[in-house]
Amino acid sequence: MSLSPTLELAIELIRRRSVTPDDADCQALMMQRLSPLGFEGEAMNFGEVQNLWARRGTEGPVLAFAGHTDVVPTGPEKNWSQPPFEPAIRDGYLYGRGAADMKGSLAAFVTACERFVAKHPDHKGSIALLITSDEEGPAHDGTVKVVDALEARNEKMDWCLIGEPSSTHRVGDIIKNGRRGSLHGYLTVHGIQGHVAYPHLAENPVHTAAPALDALARTQWDDGNEFFPATTFQITKVEAGTGSNVIPGELTVHFNFRYCTENTADSLQQRVAEILDSHGLKYDLQWHLSGQPFLTDRGSLVDAASQAIQAVTGEPTELSTSGGTSDGRFIAPTGAQVVELGPVNATIHKIDECVKAEDLDTLSAIYEEILVRLLAK
Amino acid sequence: MSLSPTLELAIELIRRRSVTPDDADCQALMMQRLSPLGFEGEAMNFGEVQNLWARRGTEGPVLAFAGHTDVVPTGPEKNWSQPPFEPAIRDGYLYGRGAADMKGSLAAFVTACERFVAKHPDHKGSIALLITSDEEGPAHDGTVKVVDALEARNEKMDWCLIGEPSSTHRVGDIIKNGRRGSLHGYLTVHGIQGHVAYPHLAENPVHTAAPALDALARTQWDDGNEFFPATTFQITKVEAGTGSNVIPGELTVHFNFRYCTENTADSLQQRVAEILDSHGLKYDLQWHLSGQPFLTDRGSLVDAASQAIQAVTGEPTELSTSGGTSDGRFIAPTGAQVVELGPVNATIHKIDECVKAEDLDTLSAIYEEILVRLLAK
Ligand SMILES: [Zn+2]
Ligand SMILES: [Zn+2]
Repeated sequence: MSLSPTLELAIELIRRRSVTPDDADCQALMMQRLSPLGFEGEAMNFGEVQNLWARRGTEGPVLAFAGHTDVVPTGPEKNWSQPPFEPAIRDGYLYGRGAADMKGSLAAFVTACERFVAKHPDHKGSIALLITSDEEGPAHDGTVKVVDALEARNEKMDWCLIGEPSSTHRVGDIIKNGRRGSLHGYLTVHGIQGHVAYPHLAENPVHTAAPALDALARTQWDDGNEFFPATTFQITKVEAGTGSNVIPGELTVHFNFRYCTENTADSLQQRVAEILDSHGLKYDLQWHLSGQPFLTDRGSLVDAASQAIQAVTGEPTELSTSGGTSDGRFIAPTGAQVVELGPVNATIHKIDECVKAEDLDTLSAIYEEILVRLLAK
Repeated sequence: MSLSPTLELAIELIRRRSVTPDDADCQALMMQRLSPLGFEGEAMNFGEVQNLWARRGTEGPVLAFAGHTDVVPTGPEKNWSQPPFEPAIRDGYLYGRGAADMKGSLAAFVTACERFVAKHPDHKGSIALLITSDEEGPAHDGTVKVVDALEARNEKMDWCLIGEPSSTHRVGDIIKNGRRGSLHGYLTVHGIQGHVAYPHLAENPVHTAAPALDALARTQWDDGNEFFPATTFQITKVEAGTGSNVIPGELTVHFNFRYCTENTADSLQQRVAEILDSHGLKYDLQWHLSGQPFLTDRGSLVDAASQAIQAVTGEPTELSTSGGTSDGRFIAPTGAQVVELGPVNATIHKIDECVKAEDLDTLSAIYEEILVRLLAK
């Protein structure tokens, strides 16, 4: 049985052991296919991270496919049904690390471009690919740096389709048109250490902080909106004392907000400080903004993606903003419309990661339909 | 300048490096002095711990002097003004590990007995000494085991004077006629671990426990009484999670009660469980009873001690139940009256532990006066 071009390319990509931040020549392999189509490839490497910006055309509007060649570690290889970097098709599924997240999508990007360019060599605007080898890692030297470089030279994306595995049951059942923001807080509550036999000489920071933590956990930060669920607050770590007969001198609390567009990092920081202050705590508080929320409302990109899914699969799609963060957080602030559309995510980051083989061909067809809707003359 | 017999004996005892549980022949040295007075010595050793029960007389009532030959570690010896086991008198103070806690008291016990027996060879009842080498350590094989052995053969103490350093500014200013109990709790609150992006699939034990911990910290357990301050509750340790994006699955909390005779370990355990249950927590809770509270009300022993201090020093004394636990927790449950009376405790367990040299002679005189008041015919 001969494999489809998309499956063949996906297998070639999975064979490359590109654990973050290693690209393992995946981007080079993609450029071998894109160059003959007229794409200009530009390496934008930072530190250990390899990034590729490839573009066909010089005019706007620009439709960019975005993704990553890096994969998460395999875990114990002996737990896999077959070696994770020796992809194989069994019972209609393609197995291998990165099959779903997201080398299948990368292959579908390339084959969609191949077919589209063959049929529409004089398409409108430009097609681009923004590929990084650091999406699964710290993500400091990946997409965010490419976006900065493009902005610095005033090069714009109008539409960005990220190949992250957005689907849950069948390919295309869900596309993500936004993501919540993620804000980390690092709180240290100061008390006075002492012996439990002499509590009047000490001040127990666990005792003073307990009602404030309770208040933070109970606060309704907002009610969400049409696209987002309500903002959530979760304490991820508490640590104080060593037990025995010593009253701790300090309490450490780490927490995280997943927040929607009804709040901003500033508004949340201010409200946390108000709650801590109202409980009379002595504290230090550090913040790390991991990603701002973003939202692409219905419009040309969402419409093209929904229609393409309907046309290829005969099924409707649903908009969602749930789940963790993605590199969309770096692209959306440029003003680009951003959606995520990729294969079923049931096995990502797991042992025996896999994707239904025919889904990759379906995905490639959907990507081609999106190109047609946005860039065909 | 020649030293008093009490100081000379204290120096001999301090020279012996009796860090817990090592007695280093201190008890043998004491018996060398007590045997000629007619004391019968009985070694009651358990594990590594050496205990001495010495008694003069076979009749009741029994006045026992109780104490320990073991000392706490010295810390860095280079930080001492002179080597901690080479006692020296400087500016009227005797320096050395154990000078105040409590080899000075042991020497005063022995010389008080020597003078009393010389003057009152046919005293009433019996004089006893209960000496252990494990008061500063786990205290599992020390006083508690001797008390068990005496009870097993129906041998009673009527009065027990413990030589712990009870004084704060001048010798005899405070005697302890009781101690609070100490009860440790080890709480594990169970939740469901998860990712911060999906809090509806998790249950954060820090969030569910916060109001319960607040309630525990605010509870007024009792109002104390004439002899005791109110019971106190202190959280000594909290631990949950590792930070980042994970909702912890479990919260660990350690806490300690210092409790007075208005509560019991049972009543406190029951009330804690009620508070945790009322907050709907899923938890495990382990308890360790470190010591029950005990109290010796005014009566023959407290009176004899107070009057002896007044007679020797011309100053009044004050009753107190403050501070940590002591071996009195093991003796009081037998029904014996128990008081603690010893030197000034300002330097115990510290670098350059010391005691005013003349205080040891004063202490010996007070002990002798107590013997006179309780056992002279
Ligand atoms: Zn991914
Ligand atoms: Zn002691």
